[in-house]
This record gives sequence, structure tokens and C-alpha cells, in this order.
Amino acid sequence: MFVAPNTDTIAALATAQGTAAIAVLRLSGPEAFSIAESMFRTRSGKPKLLHTKNSHTAHFGLLCEGEVILDEVLVAIFKGPNSYTGQDLVEISCHGSIFIQQQILQALYRHGARPAQAGEFTLRAFLNGKLDLSQAEAVADVIASTSAASHQVAMQHMRGGFSNKIAVLRENLLNFASLIELELDFSEEDVEFADRTELKKLLFTIQKIVQRLIDSFDVGNVIKNGIPVAIVGKPNAGKSTLLNALLEEERAIVSDIPGTTRDTIEEEITIDGILFRFIDTAGLRDTTDIIEAIGVSRTFDKIKEASIVIYLFDLVEMTPAELRANIATLRGLVTGAETQILLIGNKIDKEDLPQAQRDYAEFDLLFLSAKEKLFIDDLRQKLVSLFDSRTVNLTETIVTNARHVDALRHTNSAIQRTIDGIQQNIPGDLVAQDIRQALHYLGEITGQEITSDDLLANIFGKFCIGK
Amino acid sequence: MFVAPNTDTIAALATAQGTAAIAVLRLSGPEAFSIAESMFRTRSGKPKLLHTKNSHTAHFGLLCEGEVILDEVLVAIFKGPNSYTGQDLVEISCHGSIFIQQQILQALYRHGARPAQAGEFTLRAFLNGKLDLSQAEAVADVIASTSAASHQVAMQHMRGGFSNKIAVLRENLLNFASLIELELDFSEEDVEFADRTELKKLLFTIQKIVQRLIDSFDVGNVIKNGIPVAIVGKPNAGKSTLLNALLEEERAIVSDIPGTTRDTIEEEITIDGILFRFIDTAGLRDTTDIIEAIGVSRTFDKIKEASIVIYLFDLVEMTPAELRANIATLRGLVTGAETQILLIGNKIDKEDLPQAQRDYAEFDLLFLSAKEKLFIDDLRQKLVSLFDSRTVNLTETIVTNARHVDALRHTNSAIQRTIDGIQQNIPGDLVAQDIRQALHYLGEITGQEITSDDLLANIFGKFCIGK
Repeated sequence: MFVAPNTDTIAALATAQGTAAIAVLRLSGPEAFSIAESMFRTRSGKPKLLHTKNSHTAHFGLLCEGEVILDEVLVAIFKGPNSYTGQDLVEISCHGSIFIQQQILQALYRHGARPAQAGEFTLRAFLNGKLDLSQAEAVADVIASTSAASHQVAMQHMRGGFSNKIAVLRENLLNFASLIELELDFSEEDVEFADRTELKKLLFTIQKIVQRLIDSFDVGNVIKNGIPVAIVGKPNAGKSTLLNALLEEERAIVSDIPGTTRDTIEEEITIDGILFRFIDTAGLRDTTDIIEAIGVSRTFDKIKEASIVIYLFDLVEMTPAELRANIATLRGLVTGAETQILLIGNKIDKEDLPQAQRDYAEFDLLFLSAKEKLFIDDLRQKLVSLFDSRTVNLTETIVTNARHVDALRHTNSAIQRTIDGIQQNIPGDLVAQDIRQALHYLGEITGQEITSDDLLANIFGKFCIGK
Repeated sequence: MFVAPNTDTIAALATAQGTAAIAVLRLSGPEAFSIAESMFRTRSGKPKLLHTKNSHTAHFGLLCEGEVILDEVLVAIFKGPNSYTGQDLVEISCHGSIFIQQQILQALYRHGARPAQAGEFTLRAFLNGKLDLSQAEAVADVIASTSAASHQVAMQHMRGGFSNKIAVLRENLLNFASLIELELDFSEEDVEFADRTELKKLLFTIQKIVQRLIDSFDVGNVIKNGIPVAIVGKPNAGKSTLLNALLEEERAIVSDIPGTTRDTIEEEITIDGILFRFIDTAGLRDTTDIIEAIGVSRTFDKIKEASIVIYLFDLVEMTPAELRANIATLRGLVTGAETQILLIGNKIDKEDLPQAQRDYAEFDLLFLSAKEKLFIDDLRQKLVSLFDSRTVNLTETIVTNARHVDALRHTNSAIQRTIDGIQQNIPGDLVAQDIRQALHYLGEITGQEITSDDLLANIFGKFCIGK
């Protein structure tokens, strides 16, 4: 079973793998202090107590195993419940050699700690009531965030913004549920403690809020996973050159930040803190995926997935009449109501800009040269403005988690059933049952109604070790 | 100029680059607390003072820039001089997202911190008298250590074992230097405050100790950089197969330690905490560097560099008579007095072991099969025993640093001059001058006599950022 008992002591490296100035190891559980104490000594080698010290204090000394000094370390102690996990927690800062990290970790295991599983520290924080489930999930999102927008939303969730919203809805519903259930005890007297008009008003309000949260997932998903952008166009329109130009520009921007490598996420670009994800760019790169006519199924799939479709054409090759025809075809393919089309005339370096502007005056388009990197910045600004045009307010609560949106949809159905039931004057116990269902689904989000180990394993298994 | 003033405030990421549970950023200098305070708030967003708190305490809160919450963090404060650098020092533990680390670092720079140079935290520790120079150098060695032996020696240096030894020598010499210089003030009276017999006795003692330290560098260098091992033998003797077998065995041993990757140091193998470095193994791998007859210059170079020369031969192909001749040639090439030759008969899987033992009874050799991985462990044990046979005592002071051994050699020369001078009854002021030279070189090791920025830049420039 994944969900380990909260009663043993776990240890893990909490900082990134690799050689560095320092590394931090974490130890959490009832034996955290005694394990650390059994290895910790003063600078001159005398045993040193830790559990008698104040919480949130740091102590310099030696970490030893028998007569062997493993390292000079700084040990910080956090007494439960005032710690991240809610348990006694020890953080050991050691020299950042992989060898030392592993030596200490192995020694901690020998002294009674158990290797922590992925996310197990945060799981304990959840089990000990330090975080609710949606906050715990947001911790992983915060760590994984690669753009300002995704970071901001994840931070808000972690800090409980979303949880609070759910908690208020739940409390209001819970009050009504109690009143209706009270009626059941007096069913023979046919009293109504719960004002049906008030209840319906509340249910409509909740439904509106829940629907808005569900709707926010479109944006939330995009913030978290990037806005899907497809670049389509005829062969030799310059699609891969354009993508490279965008990537290079970003690379130049981030290159002064040490350690920021773009190698693994080549097809993602962050502009003004917003993540854009280019769909199926592998095809663009090997240039074999070149679509003679719009309508090829692969292009069709790309367009269906995209929030923004960039239609790139060669100003030298395509006449306004051809462009008009192609746009008509493209519009036919774009089925998503939200999908935006961005027309780009490429190879402006080979044309006269004022002349081109006159020739293509009927279209709303951007001119640029991917090859000569002319007006690439205009494209960047345009992409950001297309996102902004959705009037996203990042301080509003935005759902980013598929599990949450699923629970919200179930909540919505249960509330709809409640409303229908009240309007059809169905018996109170059936109404109460529907409300309980809505409460259950809301509680799933924050973990108040979670008992499944599988679900917890699924959520926390995606964390990194040491968190 | 590299050596930056000790008066501004520096910031850097102290943990390894990458995504992890947490990351630690360091801030050291007179503004460390005020910069942290200008960004730190309580959980509910109120400003929170740090400089009024006790040293060595940790505080949970928000790190903000204006209205933007950068992260929830744990801030630990260390008040100078009781900190690593001897200055006010702040350690910020944030969520281990590269994005957040960089956001915070950039914000710290905007608030007045300067990016720390490599080794600058330790440089400040040295400049502020928290560590002497040889201890500071040992910090880098501790971080770079990849074997138990190198780690143990580096730890001993960092903890001042070596520094203390030098300090005692220096103090004794200094006493005599003072007495001799006192004589100079009374030169007309022809007194001798410094007993020449005692002085000579001391000088001989020092010389003996210094020489032993110099000699220890042979071992020290080997511990730090690995024992150089050459594998030589005829084509198809199985040299690259043997190397692979050793590497694979180690890989299997370390594979249960997460994050330990051997990809970058393929030609180094740690056995029982001792590092063995295989010389010019690239040649073995591409199998083009195959030596028909021992005596090819490249093989000759390998043998000269090696502490251990493994001569590998094919039991099926080579008769005892041929082996005898080849060993004679090999012994002629091994010029180093310390170099040890290890004879290995390969492909024992194709022979009958008792028969082979009889056939080759005159030789001290190991039988194994590199291909079938038979008796590889015997080879591992043999390699370790060859190192142990040097009767290395790791608790003795061992010099591992080329700069130190250089200073010790200069010390030795100056002491020899002093002894010669005394024996030749040269004037006291000339004796004093030689002693001063010896003192100078000893002081160079611990940094008491260091004033050159270039030297400091050279030493600390090899550190990692954040240390």
C-alpha cells in the first residue's frame, strides 16, 4: 500500500541532485530528533541534545556515525505541529557533495529512518491537517511552474485561495442539509425548517460559482500547460524557421539567467510570463510534415487542439486572392469557438512593406521575416494580446487541475438534481441525499471526503522525492 | 580585480541547479538582513523584522516583491560573526522550482545584492578569519570528494588538522627567530639568547616533519585524484572487456543509491572507498590503441604514469615462456620505484583452472575471465590490497594540495639553508633571514602570509558558486 503509516520516520534529500555548495536532507517523524541526536555532536565531538532546543533553531556541529565524521553540518529543528509535515522535522544542511549526501542518507537509514516516497512529506502535511488536498496538489504545481502566470495561480491555490472558496460553498450547503435532515426527524409534523425559496436561491448562486470555476479550467489548463499554438501553412512558407526564430529570441532573453536550460522543453516559449506550447513542432522541424493543402488530417488535428492557429504564408508566392480562398478553408476547419486565427505574411525582407500593406489591406495580418528575424517581437506581443483578450484576471480563482474540474462537474449535476427535486416537490430525504452528494464532491477537492489510498497514491506519487 | 570588497552583500543559489522539493539561496554581507526584511512578510502579508530575532533561528513567511508573492519561504538568519562567512548571513529555503529560484535571485539583486562569484562565501569566511586558507581549500576538496578516503582526508584538513600541525611548527620557529633577532639588538655584546644546539635540534625535527608531509603528497595526491592504473597487454588480451567488467560491477553496486550517475567519470572506479583512475582508457575502448609489442611509446607513457600496471594476457594464447619474456621487458620499462605490477591471466573460462595454476606456478598471478565476469572481485580485492600495502594511515596528516607541497618544499630548503648557516657559523642576521623565509612559506599554506589577490582568485575561482 502506498499510503504509509504516519508513525515512522522518513528521510530524503530535499534539494536537487548534484554537486553544489550545500545540500539539505529532511527527516520527519516521531524519531526525527532522536535519530539526528544519535549522530549529532558539537564541534569538539561531544554529544549534543536537540530536542531540548527551541523549535525553528539551527545548530552547527558534526554529523558522525560511530567514530567517523560524515560532515560538518547545520541542523535545523522544527517541532511538530509547527513544521511543514506537522511532525517533528529536522533539516540537515551538509556540504553539497553527492558522496556526502549519500553517506548521510545511508547513515540515517541505518539509524532507523526509512527512505521517503515521492511526495510523502507533503502527504504527511495533508494527513496531519497542515494542508488540504487541493493545497497539497498546488505544492507540486508551484514546484513545476515554469511561467509567471502558472506560478501565480499555483501559489494562490497553495495558499488556500481555492480551498477557501470551496469551503464557503460547502459550509452554506451543509447548513441547509442539516435543516432538511432536521425536518426528517419531525416528518410527521410536516414542518419546513429549510426555507425552500432561500435554498433555491443558494443553490442557484452555488451553481453559478461552480460553473464559473468549471469555465475557468479552460484558462487554468492553458496557464498550467501552456496555450496550444499551431503553426500551419504551405510548404516553404517558413514554419520551422519562424519557430526557431521565436525559440532563439527567448533563448537570448533567458541566457543571462544561469542554469536555465531550454533543451528539454524546446517547443514551449514563455512570453511575458505566459507559456505558449507549440503543437506537433517535431513535424515542423524535420520538414517532412509539410501540408500541400489545408485539410490533411494531421493539420486538421493540430487545428482542433490549438487555441491559436498561426497561418503562415509566403508573401512572394501567395496572391491576396489565394490567401482569401485559403483563409475561407481554414475558417471552415476551425470548429472551436475560442480558437483564434493569426495571419502572418512571411518573407517581408523580399518585399516592399508599404506595397505589401496596400496589397493585403483587406486582411488583418502581421508582416515579418522569420529568416531575417524582422518583426518577431511584434508577433510575440500579438500572442500575448490574444491571451489577454480573454480578459483573464489572475487574481480570480482559476481551476487548473483536471481532478478538481471533474469534482466540480459532479457537484454541478448533484445541485441540478437538487433544484429539479425541489421544483418537483420530492420528499425531503431525497433532496437531502442530492445535497449530500454535492457536499461529497466538493469535499473531494479539498480532501475532506477522501478515503481512497489509490487516489492519494496517484496524487502524491507525482511529486518529487523529498517533498 | 577578483577579490571583491568584503563590504557589499552577495547572493547566490547554494543548492544544486534543478527541480526539487526545496532550494536554498544565500545572502551574506552588511545588507543581508535589510534586503531580506524588505521582501519578507508574515503569512498574512504583514512586514516582519528579522534583525531583532535571535541568530540561528528560522522564520516562515512570504517572500514578496511589491504586491507579487514570489514564494512561501523559510528564512534562517545567522548573525555575524557567528555565521559561515563571519558576516550577517541569510539562508532562504524556497520551493525548488528553477523558475522560483531565478525569480527570487533576480529580486534579491534588484534589492541591492550582487551576484556572488565562485567561492566568494568561503573567501569571505577566510577574510573574516573563520577559516585559514588551507581549511578554505579543503572545503572545495570536501565538496569534490567522491570516495571515502578523499572525503576523510579533506574533512580532516577542513577541520584544521593540517593547519594545526603547520601552526605548531611555525610557532616553534617563530620563538627562535625572535630570540635570534633579539641577539642582533645586543650584537656588540656577543650574547647568544638562542641556544644553537637547541635550534639545530628543532630545525632537524621540523625538517623531518616537513619531509614526511612532503612524502605524504604521493599518497595524498593519489587519494584525491585516484590511484593511476594502466592496463596493458597484447591485442585481444581482453583489456577493454576487463575495464568494462570492473565498471559494470561498480555500477551494480552503486545503482541502489539514487542519483549516482557514473556517466561522466567512466574511467574512475571506487573500491572500498579508494579511488582508482584508469589511464588512457579511451584507447582501450575504441580498441584501435592496441599494442603489438610492449615498448610502443604510448604504452611506455602509460606505464610511467601508473602506480599500478596491470599486465593482462590471454591464457589460451600465451605460453609461460612467452609470459616470462614479456614480464622481463615490462620490468625494464617500469622505472618508478613505487610502481607495482599485477599479472592477470584472462579467459580462465576457456581453460582448466587447476591445470593453469600448475602451468603458471612460477608466477604470482590472478586468473579471471573478463568476458564471463569470473573472479573480478578477486581483482578488486587485490587492487585495494596493493594500496593498503603502502601502509597508509588516513588519520595521519596527508598533504593533498600541490600548492601546499610546493610551500613545504620551499620551507624545507630554507630550513636546510638555516642548518647549513648555523653549522658554518654565519652571522645571526643571516640565520634570522633564513628562518623568516621558512616562516613565510609555512604561513603561505594557512594564508597568514598571503597578500596576492591573484593567488586568492586562483584558489577560490575553482569553487562552485554559492559556496
